[in-house]
Amino acid sequence: MSAVKYIYPFEEGRSSMRDLLGGKGANLAEMTHIGLPVPPGFTISTEACTAFYAQGEKLPEGLWPAALEELARLEKKAGKELGGEKDPLLVSVRSGAKFSMPGMMDTILNLGLNDQTVQAVARDTNDERFAYDCYRRFIQMFSNVVLKVDIHNFERILEGYKEDQRVRYDHELSPNSLKSVVREYKDVVLRETGRPFPQDPKEQLEMAIIAVFSSWNNQRAIVYRRQNNIPADLGTAVNVQAMVFGNTGFDSGTGVIFTRNPATGEKGLYGEYLTNAQGEDVVAGIRTPKPVAELAKDLPEAYRRLVEVGELLERHYADMQDIEFTVEHGKLYTLQTRTGKRTAAAAVKIAADLVHEGKISKPEAVMRIEPDQLTKLLHRGIDSQAKLKVMAQGLPASPGAASGAVVFDADEAQARGDKGQRVLLVRPETTPDDIHGIIAAQGILTSRGGMTCHAAIVARHMGKPCVVGCEALRIDLNRKEVLVGGTTIREGDTISIDGATGQVIMGEVPLVDPKLSGEFREILGWCDELRKIGVWANADTPGDAQKARDFGARGIGLCRTEHMFMASERLPVVQEMILAMNEKDRRTALDKLLPMQQGDFSGILQAMQGLPVTIRLLDPPLHEFLPDGEELAVDLARLRTLAEKGEKGGEAEIARKDELLKKVRALAEFNPMMGFRGCRLGVVYPEIYEMQCRAIFQAAAQLVKEGVDARPEVMIPLVGHVKELKLLRGMVERVLDEVQKATGVTLEHVMIGTMIEVPRAALTADEIATEAEFFSFGTNDLTQMTFGFSRDDAEAKFLPVYTQKGILPANPFATLDEGGVGKLVEMAVKLGRATRPGLQVGICGEHGGDPQSIDFCHRAGLDYVSCSPFRVPIARLAAAQANIAERTKVEKDK
Amino acid sequence: MSAVKYIYPFEEGRSSMRDLLGGKGANLAEMTHIGLPVPPGFTISTEACTAFYAQGEKLPEGLWPAALEELARLEKKAGKELGGEKDPLLVSVRSGAKFSMPGMMDTILNLGLNDQTVQAVARDTNDERFAYDCYRRFIQMFSNVVLKVDIHNFERILEGYKEDQRVRYDHELSPNSLKSVVREYKDVVLRETGRPFPQDPKEQLEMAIIAVFSSWNNQRAIVYRRQNNIPADLGTAVNVQAMVFGNTGFDSGTGVIFTRNPATGEKGLYGEYLTNAQGEDVVAGIRTPKPVAELAKDLPEAYRRLVEVGELLERHYADMQDIEFTVEHGKLYTLQTRTGKRTAAAAVKIAADLVHEGKISKPEAVMRIEPDQLTKLLHRGIDSQAKLKVMAQGLPASPGAASGAVVFDADEAQARGDKGQRVLLVRPETTPDDIHGIIAAQGILTSRGGMTCHAAIVARHMGKPCVVGCEALRIDLNRKEVLVGGTTIREGDTISIDGATGQVIMGEVPLVDPKLSGEFREILGWCDELRKIGVWANADTPGDAQKARDFGARGIGLCRTEHMFMASERLPVVQEMILAMNEKDRRTALDKLLPMQQGDFSGILQAMQGLPVTIRLLDPPLHEFLPDGEELAVDLARLRTLAEKGEKGGEAEIARKDELLKKVRALAEFNPMMGFRGCRLGVVYPEIYEMQCRAIFQAAAQLVKEGVDARPEVMIPLVGHVKELKLLRGMVERVLDEVQKATGVTLEHVMIGTMIEVPRAALTADEIATEAEFFSFGTNDLTQMTFGFSRDDAEAKFLPVYTQKGILPANPFATLDEGGVGKLVEMAVKLGRATRPGLQVGICGEHGGDPQSIDFCHRAGLDYVSCSPFRVPIARLAAAQANIAERTKVEKDK
Repeated sequence: MSAVKYIYPFEEGRSSMRDLLGGKGANLAEMTHIGLPVPPGFTISTEACTAFYAQGEKLPEGLWPAALEELARLEKKAGKELGGEKDPLLVSVRSGAKFSMPGMMDTILNLGLNDQTVQAVARDTNDERFAYDCYRRFIQMFSNVVLKVDIHNFERILEGYKEDQRVRYDHELSPNSLKSVVREYKDVVLRETGRPFPQDPKEQLEMAIIAVFSSWNNQRAIVYRRQNNIPADLGTAVNVQAMVFGNTGFDSGTGVIFTRNPATGEKGLYGEYLTNAQGEDVVAGIRTPKPVAELAKDLPEAYRRLVEVGELLERHYADMQDIEFTVEHGKLYTLQTRTGKRTAAAAVKIAADLVHEGKISKPEAVMRIEPDQLTKLLHRGIDSQAKLKVMAQGLPASPGAASGAVVFDADEAQARGDKGQRVLLVRPETTPDDIHGIIAAQGILTSRGGMTCHAAIVARHMGKPCVVGCEALRIDLNRKEVLVGGTTIREGDTISIDGATGQVIMGEVPLVDPKLSGEFREILGWCDELRKIGVWANADTPGDAQKARDFGARGIGLCRTEHMFMASERLPVVQEMILAMNEKDRRTALDKLLPMQQGDFSGILQAMQGLPVTIRLLDPPLHEFLPDGEELAVDLARLRTLAEKGEKGGEAEIARKDELLKKVRALAEFNPMMGFRGCRLGVVYPEIYEMQCRAIFQAAAQLVKEGVDARPEVMIPLVGHVKELKLLRGMVERVLDEVQKATGVTLEHVMIGTMIEVPRAALTADEIATEAEFFSFGTNDLTQMTFGFSRDDAEAKFLPVYTQKGILPANPFATLDEGGVGKLVEMAVKLGRATRPGLQVGICGEHGGDPQSIDFCHRAGLDYVSCSPFRVPIARLAAAQANIAERTKVEKDK
Repeated sequence: MSAVKYIYPFEEGRSSMRDLLGGKGANLAEMTHIGLPVPPGFTISTEACTAFYAQGEKLPEGLWPAALEELARLEKKAGKELGGEKDPLLVSVRSGAKFSMPGMMDTILNLGLNDQTVQAVARDTNDERFAYDCYRRFIQMFSNVVLKVDIHNFERILEGYKEDQRVRYDHELSPNSLKSVVREYKDVVLRETGRPFPQDPKEQLEMAIIAVFSSWNNQRAIVYRRQNNIPADLGTAVNVQAMVFGNTGFDSGTGVIFTRNPATGEKGLYGEYLTNAQGEDVVAGIRTPKPVAELAKDLPEAYRRLVEVGELLERHYADMQDIEFTVEHGKLYTLQTRTGKRTAAAAVKIAADLVHEGKISKPEAVMRIEPDQLTKLLHRGIDSQAKLKVMAQGLPASPGAASGAVVFDADEAQARGDKGQRVLLVRPETTPDDIHGIIAAQGILTSRGGMTCHAAIVARHMGKPCVVGCEALRIDLNRKEVLVGGTTIREGDTISIDGATGQVIMGEVPLVDPKLSGEFREILGWCDELRKIGVWANADTPGDAQKARDFGARGIGLCRTEHMFMASERLPVVQEMILAMNEKDRRTALDKLLPMQQGDFSGILQAMQGLPVTIRLLDPPLHEFLPDGEELAVDLARLRTLAEKGEKGGEAEIARKDELLKKVRALAEFNPMMGFRGCRLGVVYPEIYEMQCRAIFQAAAQLVKEGVDARPEVMIPLVGHVKELKLLRGMVERVLDEVQKATGVTLEHVMIGTMIEVPRAALTADEIATEAEFFSFGTNDLTQMTFGFSRDDAEAKFLPVYTQKGILPANPFATLDEGGVGKLVEMAVKLGRATRPGLQVGICGEHGGDPQSIDFCHRAGLDYVSCSPFRVPIARLAAAQANIAERTKVEKDK
């Protein structure tokens, strides 16, 4: 026997042993421990799985003998024998990793059945239909999972019998039909594998254990782990448990409940069940189940017990639970419990309610909410004013609205999604094999399944709008169309879904911004008490600024001015400025832009009154404001060829375009990201920055006169050398002085600072701080230059391979690279504050809205993070979590 | 009187006071001190110039009264009075900065003349021609320099008189003609300035001093300083000195000599003089002067004295001297001495000779040679086998050969040069105003002037080929053509010059590589003894490798493999590989490339046997090997328009180009510099790197079998994360293993390392060193990413403004930016060696050949620098100088 202990009966485990036993095993043990009705069983540990892979996918030495010993003890507890001639033991063999991966790995039910034991079961239960139903399920599952026989082989046979017998549901098939099904199933196995279906229950068990271990590395599990950042080396445990049966008749059933509504957080049992069914029927969404409330009528005693168990488990785990149960002839068994996945709205409400119920503390509540999940609460919904052409109504499985082109399979969804097309995946139901299509789609619509079906669970977890069980849809996968009411929707047609109401709508719909719930505001209030780092927002318009302020931003960390240049009525003036041959003409154009810019700044400063507004002077290369050179060249080639062919009248157009092309070419760059942009523009054409500063200060002075507390901060972009900043700072100060003199207003809160986005700026931050009152890390560019990654090129060409091969743990443009870019940030903070102790330091790159990066910013001692308005609530939460985590660590280290 | 002492009579100064007195003032003082025949005078210090600018271009308080006092003392010494009625004192007023800026600033001779004193001079010298010649020179110079009257006004008058009188030289004009010239000159002044020519000699003096100070910031001086990296805040001194006259008849004269030949270094007086002339005549190159040897016949006593003075000064300064002298009625005066500028060849020979003569030590000799100057010795010459169509013969003023399109003015030279055209500047003579044209041109050709004329001095200093005094040329500036023999050369025609022989040649000529002189080799030998840092070379071909080895390289620091891909017979295979849709097709193409690459590597490894050859795996983005997208698009537009117009037969071509364009587009990038290149290619398409490694190791194994000591080092480019290197290192080791097994050869000297060219690599060098046996700093890319400068864009768009505005001290792509990029280099060396003490560290960016950057590399503790083969000697010298400078500093600090 092996020296390592790989096997733990449920009596030996606890919920704290998730690493070793997986989530399912640990919770089965915990439930056993607290006396809940759990069928007996044992768990083969994740260490066994790791050993399995270490030895080239072989069971580690001693494991199988130990499993047989444990099986003997299980047989004793159950009072039944695996393969026994009378009342034989049947078991389930289920995967269970540390982190829940719903439906990703394999499960086998009813193991132990063979041509003999099926008869024993039929005899003992006096229910031949039941026995052969179990057996055909077992053959199908085992053959699919263990023997890798395509499941359609079996489905076709079953569907054929159902059609012949004109029945709708599996359980309506007669025992004789089921016997024929079993016979045909076994023929399929012989044909497809060259061997008869294995009859030895112990052989079945060993093969099943190996198959579950192997399923850790199936394709969909790998995709899911990548999607959810689950490490690939954790492995899965295997749970072997005595079967109980929900398919023994209409006093039996099986279901899944949540102790609170996972969509809204409302307290009370929530879930679905099916009578006379096994668990897979509920999860797979093949039959539409009944709401759990109806169980109170169907089986009142089991329902009463279920309510009790739910309350007990929620109190025990101090969190909302997701419980699988089976009722066998009226007796309730709990087969699994776990902390339930929930929508963001539910997470927020549950966390707040648990604080109000005195079950958890405020910091605990704050730590309970996954910041990334909140994006879902901030998703846009359908404008309530809009007139909708509602075509059908399904179940509201995951909130949020989405529009897109209809596609009928996951591969197509991925193909179109990769091209940037917005698609809706429409399926009868989804399976774990569809995961890549779900990722690629804007939303999911299914004609079958309930609130806990695969599509619903996965979509909620991803925060994707999802409508399920929309039975009015008649989907024809072959013809790639769906009939609904009288209308035929074809692949590529646009429809919309509202995951909050379950509506399916014709065409595109207008969307509106979300509102924050009372509980959400309450928790964010706790976050503000609990966080140290400030939360500002990036906003370029008064509207965005107002939104940011409503969401709790305490300043604008980045107001870009280039979008203001892009407005259609301004672009011609901007182009006039760019194409000017000398400073005088440039100034003439700039004079026209000044009042426009002044208006922009005035609106934002007003919206943010009393709070700082960091305005970045013009940053992008000037050619971004001009037409595309290649398009011009192609146009010219066409016009010239026409002229050659004798077409008249194009000369003026040719001359004009030729002239323009020359200018475009003169401004064209090889690597615009590192070209003539940022403060380099300000150094070469000081008059551009001068105009912008004048517009800022004039706007602020006018507001101050009107009694508005305007606080502009002027930010010089792309500084790499202190002398750039020194030169431009001199200009800014001169303009400030001129405006103050001309208006008679003293602007008290003006600050002048710089972005830190070029590695050299970080390396020489001590020098740069002599001229900067604030630093703002532009971590997008800083990441580009520190890695030497052009973001657009990298994400299209090689970054996916990099994360896939594990070279990088994540996309460094989404989550700040602490090891490299973070080192520069830390260096710059230290050097900068050494020169100027009061230096204000923030971050305005996209990382400012990423929870993990916010945690880094907190640790690095930044004063604030600035992110897009919609991420402000997330940032407030993440900022609080960073501080709580640090305090917890400090206390632990004491 | 001012509290600050601004004025120093020559008796008070010494040669060590260059900072204060400028080079000319300090040497005049030194010569006075050692008793040489120097006319008396005084120097107004550079501090006065600084004060002049600090006070808004006004003479500092007290300066003028002090100057008048010193003038009184000068009058006493000279026994003459400025403006005196009898034997009046005339003075020269000359600029003189710390660093020689020949011809860049202003000089005024004969100051003190007016309508009265000219008559006194005529009377006292009994030489009316002389007196009025001086006066007309003075008016012309003073009016041009001080009053800013265009010099052509005067030249036209003088030329008119010379034509009327049918004389060739100025001194042939009669006294009466000269009187008329003076009268017309004064009319010009009245007309152009609205005031008569100033008659008060003291007013003349004050105006002249101010003008000299002002000339520090004239346009050509600014350009020259920028070109020569002379700080802008040093200021110039002003030297006021009693005049002596070389234009008092044919027993007088003036000239410039070198104590050794400045072109070859040969010992012996070398130079030119003109009888009956003033100094400006020689320098300006207007009259072609006589070789100084002829002075021995013309004025034997003065010649004897000149030889003595030359020997004395060379011994005194322990270096070759450049001496200005004047003979007045047979008596020799020395007016200036300075260490003579010389060609690189001369510098080398002189330094070696001085060591052999026991005058200086080896380290002193090494420190005497400017490394940048050596490039000139390494310039290519004309192939001696070539048949040349020699059109004319001039003076060989600056060695090296050049071909280019003829241009006749500096602006045109610059305009064409900016467009990348190779031009030769052809002028009757050049003036300091032509400096921008000289910079832009490949070489200079003049019809007038001697070896010490403006063009010759400037060209030698820049290391540009130059032929002067080619009197056979008849240049017509208006018609922009030159007649030589019977041939007319027009603007834009190509000719060649050989600055080593003085030949002017029709058309383009074949060039050959230079050979190193014995002295050069000798000094480089001393350098190798005196340096600590190694010198390797960058070479991509066996020929280059051989050249590098001949020049003393001790390894190849960078062998690029992309050039090998570009060869015309390989490009189609490379394109086939790139356009392959899958790994199999890619491998098929790669299999064809393998033997070709193996041949490349075999040649280089053989050439460098016994020395390391660092081979960089493929680096550039793949689209560099494909046609240009825009050209394709334009082509397509043309073809399609033709097809629309009914032209037949283009369909296949359209389809082919459309297909190709799609591929080109798929590979196109926004910022290729930071895109899909370097090891990112190796990560995504490992088969490419695998082929290259196989080619390297197979080549090495074959050579080892043949008894050749092949030492390849495999260099992975663009690594930013240790895991990239780890992954690829695994591949390299696997291929090495396979090749060793297949060939039975053990390759003992293989090393695997990486470029450090991405900031992140430097920041995480401790991690990267775990997988790298060597680092090679790719400082071109490292500079690009650290600054965020795309080199091509920056140099075209804004870097010139940056250096001009003083934001950056130099182009950071030419001289390593120690403050930023250098900080990363130092960090990487420290972190890398902390992980792996034996880590080999070098640099292979262009900075590896830049002396100042080599000094940095020495201080940073690098093991070697690697540069282009032609810069290897320069690097050996600079490496020795870095070590000597450090030892000198250490000893000083003791």
